Amino acid sequence: MVSKNSASASKSAPRPGGRSARIRESVFAATIELLPEQGIGNLSIRDVAERAEVAESTIYRRWGTATVLAAEAVADYAFTENPIPDTGNLEDDLRQFLRNIVAILRQTEMRRLLRIAISLDDSDTQQAAAYTAFWNSRFDAGTTIVQRAIARAEVPPGTDSLPVIETLVGAVYARTFLLKQPIDNQLFEASIHAALHVATR
Amino acid sequence: MVSKNSASASKSAPRPGGRSARIRESVFAATIELLPEQGIGNLSIRDVAERAEVAESTIYRRWGTATVLAAEAVADYAFTENPIPDTGNLEDDLRQFLRNIVAILRQTEMRRLLRIAISLDDSDTQQAAAYTAFWNSRFDAGTTIVQRAIARAEVPPGTDSLPVIETLVGAVYARTFLLKQPIDNQLFEASIHAALHVATR
Repeated sequence: MVSKNSASASKSAPRPGGRSARIRESVFAATIELLPEQGIGNLSIRDVAERAEVAESTIYRRWGTATVLAAEAVADYAFTENPIPDTGNLEDDLRQFLRNIVAILRQTEMRRLLRIAISLDDSDTQQAAAYTAFWNSRFDAGTTIVQRAIARAEVPPGTDSLPVIETLVGAVYARTFLLKQPIDNQLFEASIHAALHVATR
Repeated sequence: MVSKNSASASKSAPRPGGRSARIRESVFAATIELLPEQGIGNLSIRDVAERAEVAESTIYRRWGTATVLAAEAVADYAFTENPIPDTGNLEDDLRQFLRNIVAILRQTEMRRLLRIAISLDDSDTQQAAAYTAFWNSRFDAGTTIVQRAIARAEVPPGTDSLPVIETLVGAVYARTFLLKQPIDNQLFEASIHAALHVATR
Protein backbone atom coordinates (compact mmCIF):
# COMPACT_ATOMS: atom_id res chain seq x y z
CA MET A 1 0.00 0.00 0.00
CA VAL A 2 2.89 2.34 0.70
CA SER A 3 4.00 2.43 -2.91
CA LYS A 4 0.45 2.80 -4.16
CA ASN A 5 -0.29 5.81 -1.98
CA SER A 6 2.99 7.44 -2.67
CA ALA A 7 2.61 6.82 -6.40
CA SER A 8 -0.79 8.49 -6.22
CA ALA A 9 0.66 11.39 -4.33
CA SER A 10 3.34 11.90 -6.95
CA LYS A 11 0.86 11.93 -9.83
CA SER A 12 -0.15 15.54 -9.80
CA ALA A 13 2.13 17.33 -7.38
CA PRO A 14 5.84 17.33 -6.64
CA ARG A 15 6.74 15.02 -3.79
CA PRO A 16 6.08 16.61 -0.46
CA GLY A 17 9.30 17.69 1.19
CA GLY A 18 10.29 16.59 4.65
CA ARG A 19 12.81 14.16 5.96
CA SER A 20 10.70 11.07 5.36
CA ALA A 21 10.16 11.88 1.68
CA ARG A 22 13.85 12.68 1.22
CA ILE A 23 14.87 9.34 2.74
CA ARG A 24 12.43 7.51 0.50
CA GLU A 25 13.74 9.25 -2.59
CA SER A 26 17.41 8.65 -1.87
CA VAL A 27 16.85 5.01 -0.83
CA PHE A 28 14.87 4.29 -4.02
CA ALA A 29 17.51 6.02 -6.15
CA ALA A 30 20.28 3.96 -4.52
CA THR A 31 18.23 0.77 -4.97
CA ILE A 32 17.65 1.42 -8.68
CA GLU A 33 21.37 2.12 -9.12
CA LEU A 34 22.41 -1.07 -7.33
CA LEU A 35 19.83 -3.49 -8.75
CA PRO A 36 21.50 -3.91 -12.18
CA GLU A 37 24.82 -4.79 -10.50
CA GLN A 38 23.54 -6.92 -7.65
CA GLY A 39 20.27 -8.35 -8.93
CA ILE A 40 17.19 -8.60 -6.75
CA GLY A 41 18.40 -11.81 -5.08
CA ASN A 42 21.62 -10.27 -3.83
CA LEU A 43 20.56 -6.70 -3.21
CA SER A 44 22.48 -5.58 -0.14
CA ILE A 45 20.60 -3.31 2.24
CA ARG A 46 23.98 -2.34 3.70
CA ASP A 47 25.11 -1.07 0.27
CA VAL A 48 21.82 0.73 -0.30
CA ALA A 49 22.15 2.41 3.10
CA GLU A 50 25.71 3.47 2.38
CA ARG A 51 24.91 4.90 -1.04
CA ALA A 52 21.72 6.63 0.16
CA GLU A 53 23.51 7.90 3.28
CA VAL A 54 20.84 6.64 5.66
CA ALA A 55 21.05 4.20 8.55
CA GLU A 56 20.57 0.52 7.72
CA SER A 57 18.11 0.29 10.60
CA THR A 58 15.93 2.94 8.95
CA ILE A 59 15.65 0.81 5.83
CA TYR A 60 14.85 -2.36 7.77
CA ARG A 61 12.22 -0.53 9.82
CA ARG A 62 10.55 0.94 6.77
CA TRP A 63 10.78 -1.85 4.19
CA GLY A 64 11.61 -4.99 6.19
CA THR A 65 13.34 -6.96 3.43
CA ALA A 66 15.41 -6.32 0.33
CA THR A 67 12.66 -7.89 -1.80
CA VAL A 68 10.00 -5.47 -0.57
CA LEU A 69 12.38 -2.54 -1.00
CA ALA A 70 13.23 -3.67 -4.53
CA ALA A 71 9.54 -4.13 -5.47
CA GLU A 72 8.63 -0.67 -4.21
CA ALA A 73 11.63 1.01 -5.79
CA VAL A 74 10.83 -0.62 -9.13
CA ALA A 75 7.16 0.45 -8.84
CA ASP A 76 8.29 4.00 -8.15
CA TYR A 77 10.74 3.87 -11.06
CA ALA A 78 8.14 2.44 -13.45
CA PHE A 79 5.76 5.19 -12.40
CA THR A 80 8.34 7.90 -13.05
CA GLU A 81 9.28 6.35 -16.42
CA ASN A 82 5.64 5.95 -17.43
CA PRO A 83 3.55 8.77 -15.95
CA ILE A 84 -0.14 8.76 -16.81
CA PRO A 85 -0.47 10.30 -20.28
CA ASP A 86 -3.06 13.04 -20.80
CA THR A 87 -3.09 13.84 -24.53
CA GLY A 88 -6.77 14.69 -24.72
CA ASN A 89 -7.96 11.53 -26.47
CA LEU A 90 -8.14 7.86 -25.56
CA GLU A 91 -6.22 6.38 -28.48
CA ASP A 92 -3.19 8.64 -28.04
CA ASP A 93 -3.23 8.09 -24.28
CA LEU A 94 -3.23 4.31 -24.83
CA ARG A 95 -0.45 4.61 -27.41
CA GLN A 96 1.77 6.65 -25.14
CA PHE A 97 1.13 4.41 -22.14
CA LEU A 98 1.90 1.22 -24.09
CA ARG A 99 4.92 2.78 -25.83
CA ASN A 100 6.45 3.52 -22.42
CA ILE A 101 5.73 -0.01 -21.23
CA VAL A 102 7.43 -1.43 -24.32
CA ALA A 103 10.45 0.82 -23.67
CA ILE A 104 10.63 -0.40 -20.06
CA LEU A 105 10.33 -4.05 -21.19
CA ARG A 106 13.22 -3.53 -23.60
CA GLN A 107 15.56 -3.11 -20.62
CA THR A 108 17.06 -6.46 -19.64
CA GLU A 109 17.24 -5.60 -15.97
CA MET A 110 13.63 -4.39 -15.87
CA ARG A 111 12.51 -7.63 -17.51
CA ARG A 112 14.45 -9.57 -14.88
CA LEU A 113 12.89 -7.54 -12.06
CA LEU A 114 9.39 -7.97 -13.43
CA ARG A 115 9.93 -11.70 -13.97
CA ILE A 116 10.98 -11.99 -10.36
CA ALA A 117 7.94 -9.94 -9.30
CA ILE A 118 5.70 -12.36 -11.22
CA SER A 119 7.22 -15.37 -9.48
CA LEU A 120 7.18 -13.88 -5.96
CA ASP A 121 5.71 -16.31 -3.49
CA ASP A 122 2.31 -14.97 -2.50
CA SER A 123 2.23 -17.13 0.63
CA ASP A 124 4.78 -14.69 2.07
CA THR A 125 2.46 -11.95 3.31
CA GLN A 126 4.93 -9.10 3.17
CA GLN A 127 6.11 -10.02 -0.33
CA ALA A 128 2.51 -10.44 -1.46
CA ALA A 129 1.58 -6.98 -0.14
CA ALA A 130 4.50 -5.34 -1.93
CA TYR A 131 3.66 -7.27 -5.05
CA THR A 132 -0.02 -6.33 -5.03
CA ALA A 133 0.81 -2.69 -4.37
CA PHE A 134 3.14 -2.72 -7.34
CA TRP A 135 0.67 -4.12 -9.88
CA ASN A 136 -2.30 -2.21 -8.52
CA SER A 137 -0.41 1.04 -8.93
CA ARG A 138 0.40 0.11 -12.54
CA PHE A 139 -3.16 -0.84 -13.42
CA ASP A 140 -4.55 2.18 -11.56
CA ALA A 141 -2.65 4.40 -13.98
CA GLY A 142 -4.54 2.75 -16.81
CA THR A 143 -7.81 3.22 -14.98
CA THR A 144 -7.24 6.97 -14.94
CA ILE A 145 -6.84 6.96 -18.74
CA VAL A 146 -10.20 5.23 -19.23
CA GLN A 147 -11.95 7.44 -16.66
CA ARG A 148 -10.82 10.54 -18.54
CA ALA A 149 -12.19 9.03 -21.77
CA ILE A 150 -15.53 8.48 -20.02
CA ALA A 151 -15.49 12.11 -18.85
CA ARG A 152 -14.92 13.21 -22.48
CA ALA A 153 -17.78 10.91 -23.59
CA GLU A 154 -15.39 8.98 -25.85
CA VAL A 155 -16.50 5.69 -24.31
CA PRO A 156 -19.83 4.70 -22.72
CA PRO A 157 -20.36 5.73 -19.09
CA GLY A 158 -19.78 2.82 -16.73
CA THR A 159 -17.10 1.26 -18.97
CA ASP A 160 -14.97 -0.95 -16.75
CA SER A 161 -11.38 0.13 -17.21
CA LEU A 162 -9.67 -3.03 -16.00
CA PRO A 163 -10.40 -5.28 -19.03
CA VAL A 164 -9.38 -2.39 -21.30
CA ILE A 165 -5.98 -2.09 -19.66
CA GLU A 166 -5.54 -5.86 -19.40
CA THR A 167 -6.28 -6.11 -23.12
CA LEU A 168 -3.86 -3.27 -23.85
CA VAL A 169 -0.92 -4.79 -22.00
CA GLY A 170 -1.72 -8.53 -21.85
CA ALA A 171 -0.43 -9.55 -25.28
CA VAL A 172 2.74 -7.46 -24.81
CA TYR A 173 3.45 -9.16 -21.49
CA ALA A 174 2.67 -12.59 -23.00
CA ARG A 175 5.09 -11.94 -25.89
CA THR A 176 7.77 -10.75 -23.45
CA PHE A 177 7.46 -13.22 -20.60
CA LEU A 178 5.91 -16.33 -22.17
CA LEU A 179 7.34 -16.39 -25.69
CA LYS A 180 10.37 -14.25 -24.71
CA GLN A 181 10.29 -12.55 -28.11
CA PRO A 182 10.56 -8.83 -28.92
CA ILE A 183 7.49 -6.62 -29.42
CA ASP A 184 7.02 -5.66 -33.07
CA ASN A 185 4.88 -2.93 -34.58
CA GLN A 186 2.21 -5.42 -35.59
CA LEU A 187 1.62 -6.56 -32.01
CA PHE A 188 1.72 -2.97 -30.81
CA GLU A 189 -1.01 -1.90 -33.26
CA ALA A 190 -3.08 -5.03 -32.58
CA SER A 191 -2.98 -4.25 -28.85
CA ILE A 192 -4.08 -0.63 -29.34
CA HIS A 193 -6.97 -1.64 -31.58
CA ALA A 194 -8.02 -4.52 -29.33
CA ALA A 195 -8.07 -2.24 -26.26
CA LEU A 196 -10.05 0.48 -28.12
CA HIS A 197 -12.50 -2.22 -29.24
CA VAL A 198 -12.99 -3.45 -25.67
CA ALA A 199 -13.44 0.14 -24.45
CA THR A 200 -16.04 1.14 -27.01
CA ARG A 201 -17.99 -1.98 -27.90
CA MET B 1 11.41 -30.00 -29.25
CA VAL B 2 10.46 -33.44 -28.00
CA SER B 3 7.28 -32.18 -26.40
CA LYS B 4 6.40 -30.10 -29.43
CA ASN B 5 6.72 -32.94 -31.91
CA SER B 6 4.97 -35.41 -29.72
CA ALA B 7 2.20 -32.92 -29.04
CA SER B 8 1.72 -32.51 -32.78
CA ALA B 9 1.74 -36.24 -33.26
CA SER B 10 -0.95 -36.72 -30.64
CA LYS B 11 -3.28 -34.14 -32.23
CA SER B 12 -5.10 -36.32 -34.67
CA ALA B 13 -3.99 -39.87 -34.02
CA PRO B 14 -3.53 -42.04 -30.95
CA ARG B 15 0.03 -42.13 -29.70
CA PRO B 16 2.16 -44.49 -31.67
CA GLY B 17 2.77 -47.66 -29.74
CA GLY B 18 6.19 -49.04 -29.00
CA ARG B 19 8.32 -49.18 -25.94
CA SER B 20 9.57 -45.60 -26.22
CA ALA B 21 6.07 -44.13 -26.37
CA ARG B 22 4.91 -46.30 -23.47
CA ILE B 23 7.84 -45.13 -21.32
CA ARG B 24 7.08 -41.53 -22.16
CA GLU B 25 3.43 -41.94 -21.27
CA SER B 26 4.01 -43.66 -17.94
CA VAL B 27 6.81 -41.25 -16.93
CA PHE B 28 4.62 -38.22 -17.73
CA ALA B 29 1.68 -39.73 -15.84
CA ALA B 30 3.87 -40.38 -12.79
CA THR B 31 5.29 -36.85 -13.00
CA ILE B 32 1.83 -35.23 -13.12
CA GLU B 33 0.76 -37.36 -10.15
CA LEU B 34 3.83 -36.43 -8.10
CA LEU B 35 4.07 -32.71 -8.93
CA PRO B 36 1.19 -31.58 -6.67
CA GLU B 37 2.77 -33.39 -3.69
CA GLN B 38 6.41 -32.59 -4.33
CA GLY B 39 6.34 -29.33 -6.24
CA ILE B 40 8.60 -28.67 -9.21
CA GLY B 41 11.57 -27.74 -6.98
CA ASN B 42 11.56 -31.05 -5.14
CA LEU B 43 10.38 -33.42 -7.82
CA SER B 44 12.26 -36.65 -7.23
CA ILE B 45 13.31 -38.53 -10.36
CA ARG B 46 13.76 -41.57 -8.15
CA ASP B 47 10.08 -41.41 -7.13
CA VAL B 48 8.99 -40.82 -10.72
CA ALA B 49 11.01 -43.86 -11.84
CA GLU B 50 9.52 -46.03 -9.11
CA ARG B 51 5.94 -45.00 -9.85
CA ALA B 52 6.39 -45.29 -13.63
CA GLU B 53 8.24 -48.59 -13.26
CA VAL B 54 11.16 -47.50 -15.42
CA ALA B 55 14.88 -47.25 -14.61
CA GLU B 56 16.08 -43.93 -13.16
CA SER B 57 18.89 -43.96 -15.72
CA THR B 58 16.32 -44.00 -18.54
CA ILE B 59 14.76 -40.82 -17.22
CA TYR B 60 18.11 -39.07 -16.79
CA ARG B 61 19.18 -40.10 -20.29
CA ARG B 62 15.97 -38.86 -21.87
CA TRP B 63 15.13 -35.71 -19.88
CA GLY B 64 18.36 -34.80 -18.09
CA THR B 65 16.85 -32.90 -15.15
CA ALA B 66 13.69 -32.86 -13.10
CA THR B 67 12.92 -29.36 -14.36
CA VAL B 68 12.98 -30.40 -18.01
CA LEU B 69 10.91 -33.48 -17.24
CA ALA B 70 8.37 -31.37 -15.33
CA ALA B 71 8.15 -28.78 -18.13
CA GLU B 72 7.55 -31.44 -20.78
CA ALA B 73 5.07 -33.37 -18.66
CA VAL B 74 3.11 -30.19 -17.98
CA ALA B 75 3.15 -29.30 -21.71
CA ASP B 76 1.85 -32.75 -22.53
CA TYR B 77 -0.81 -32.49 -19.80
CA ALA B 78 -1.90 -29.02 -20.96
CA PHE B 79 -2.17 -30.34 -24.49
CA THR B 80 -4.30 -33.27 -23.40
CA GLU B 81 -6.52 -31.03 -21.24
CA ASN B 82 -6.85 -28.46 -24.02
CA PRO B 83 -6.78 -30.18 -27.41
CA ILE B 84 -7.17 -27.93 -30.44
CA PRO B 85 -10.90 -27.26 -30.83
CA ASP B 86 -12.47 -27.71 -34.26
CA THR B 87 -16.09 -26.54 -33.96
CA GLY B 88 -16.34 -25.24 -37.52
CA ASN B 89 -16.19 -21.52 -36.75
CA LEU B 90 -13.56 -19.19 -35.34
CA GLU B 91 -15.52 -17.68 -32.46
CA ASP B 92 -16.53 -21.03 -30.99
CA ASP B 93 -13.01 -22.39 -31.45
CA LEU B 94 -11.61 -19.36 -29.56
CA ARG B 95 -14.24 -19.74 -26.84
CA GLN B 96 -13.48 -23.40 -26.29
CA PHE B 97 -9.72 -22.87 -26.33
CA LEU B 98 -9.90 -20.01 -23.82
CA ARG B 99 -12.44 -21.82 -21.63
CA ASN B 100 -10.02 -24.73 -21.27
CA ILE B 101 -7.16 -22.36 -20.45
CA VAL B 102 -9.27 -20.70 -17.75
CA ALA B 103 -10.09 -24.14 -16.32
CA ILE B 104 -6.40 -25.05 -16.24
CA LEU B 105 -5.52 -21.72 -14.59
CA ARG B 106 -8.11 -22.38 -11.88
CA GLN B 107 -5.97 -25.27 -10.62
CA THR B 108 -3.58 -24.02 -7.92
CA GLU B 109 -0.85 -26.47 -8.86
CA MET B 110 -1.06 -25.61 -12.56
CA ARG B 111 -0.76 -21.93 -11.70
CA ARG B 112 2.30 -22.71 -9.62
CA LEU B 113 3.86 -24.76 -12.41
CA LEU B 114 3.20 -22.06 -14.98
CA ARG B 115 4.54 -19.36 -12.66
CA ILE B 116 7.71 -21.37 -12.28
CA ALA B 117 7.87 -21.86 -16.07
CA ILE B 118 7.63 -18.09 -16.52
CA SER B 119 10.46 -17.45 -14.09
CA LEU B 120 12.77 -20.21 -15.44
CA ASP B 121 16.25 -18.92 -16.00
CA ASP B 122 16.75 -18.68 -19.76
CA SER B 123 20.54 -18.57 -19.39
CA ASP B 124 20.31 -22.32 -18.61
CA THR B 125 20.22 -23.74 -22.14
CA GLN B 126 18.43 -26.96 -21.30
CA GLN B 127 15.79 -25.19 -19.23
CA ALA B 128 15.37 -22.58 -21.94
CA ALA B 129 14.85 -25.26 -24.60
CA ALA B 130 12.23 -27.04 -22.52
CA TYR B 131 10.59 -23.71 -21.79
CA THR B 132 10.48 -22.61 -25.41
CA ALA B 133 9.15 -25.98 -26.53
CA PHE B 134 6.39 -25.69 -23.95
CA TRP B 135 5.13 -22.25 -24.97
CA ASN B 136 5.63 -22.80 -28.68
CA SER B 137 3.47 -25.91 -28.51
CA ARG B 138 0.77 -23.92 -26.70
CA PHE B 139 0.81 -21.04 -29.18
CA ASP B 140 1.01 -23.44 -32.14
CA ALA B 141 -2.34 -24.86 -31.09
CA GLY B 142 -3.79 -21.37 -31.41
CA THR B 143 -2.17 -20.95 -34.81
CA THR B 144 -4.05 -23.98 -36.08
CA ILE B 145 -7.35 -22.38 -35.04
CA VAL B 146 -6.61 -19.24 -37.05
CA GLN B 147 -5.35 -21.18 -40.06
CA ARG B 148 -8.59 -23.12 -40.19
CA ALA B 149 -10.51 -19.82 -40.09
CA ILE B 150 -8.43 -18.57 -43.03
CA ALA B 151 -9.24 -21.80 -44.92
CA ARG B 152 -12.96 -21.18 -44.28
CA ALA B 153 -12.52 -17.55 -45.47
CA GLU B 154 -13.72 -16.27 -42.09
CA VAL B 155 -10.66 -14.05 -41.78
CA PRO B 156 -8.50 -12.43 -44.48
CA PRO B 157 -5.83 -14.62 -46.07
CA GLY B 158 -2.40 -13.89 -44.63
CA THR B 159 -3.80 -13.03 -41.20
CA ASP B 160 -0.98 -13.52 -38.71
CA SER B 161 -2.23 -15.86 -36.04
CA LEU B 162 0.23 -14.99 -33.29
CA PRO B 163 -1.20 -11.55 -32.33
CA VAL B 164 -4.70 -13.10 -32.39
CA ILE B 165 -3.73 -15.77 -29.88
CA GLU B 166 -1.66 -13.36 -27.78
CA THR B 167 -4.69 -11.05 -27.64
CA LEU B 168 -6.94 -13.99 -26.75
CA VAL B 169 -4.84 -15.22 -23.83
CA GLY B 170 -2.79 -12.16 -22.79
CA ALA B 171 -5.37 -10.45 -20.57
CA VAL B 172 -6.27 -13.75 -18.90
CA TYR B 173 -2.62 -14.43 -18.09
CA ALA B 174 -2.15 -10.83 -16.89
CA ARG B 175 -5.18 -11.14 -14.58
CA THR B 176 -3.92 -14.49 -13.25
CA PHE B 177 -0.18 -13.88 -12.89
CA LEU B 178 0.14 -10.09 -12.50
CA LEU B 179 -3.00 -9.11 -10.59
CA LYS B 180 -3.49 -12.63 -9.15
CA GLN B 181 -7.26 -12.24 -9.39
CA PRO B 182 -9.84 -14.68 -10.75
CA ILE B 183 -11.10 -14.54 -14.36
CA ASP B 184 -14.67 -13.28 -14.54
CA ASN B 185 -17.14 -13.50 -17.40
CA GLN B 186 -16.54 -9.89 -18.36
CA LEU B 187 -12.84 -10.45 -18.98
CA PHE B 188 -13.59 -13.70 -20.80
CA GLU B 189 -15.99 -11.97 -23.22
CA ALA B 190 -13.67 -8.97 -23.66
CA SER B 191 -10.85 -11.36 -24.62
CA ILE B 192 -12.98 -13.22 -27.18
CA HIS B 193 -14.15 -9.99 -28.80
CA ALA B 194 -10.68 -8.44 -28.76
CA ALA B 195 -9.15 -11.51 -30.43
CA LEU B 196 -11.93 -11.63 -33.07
CA HIS B 197 -11.36 -7.94 -33.73
CA VAL B 198 -7.61 -8.46 -34.21
CA ALA B 199 -8.30 -11.46 -36.51
CA THR B 200 -10.78 -9.67 -38.76
CA ARG B 201 -9.80 -6.01 -38.81
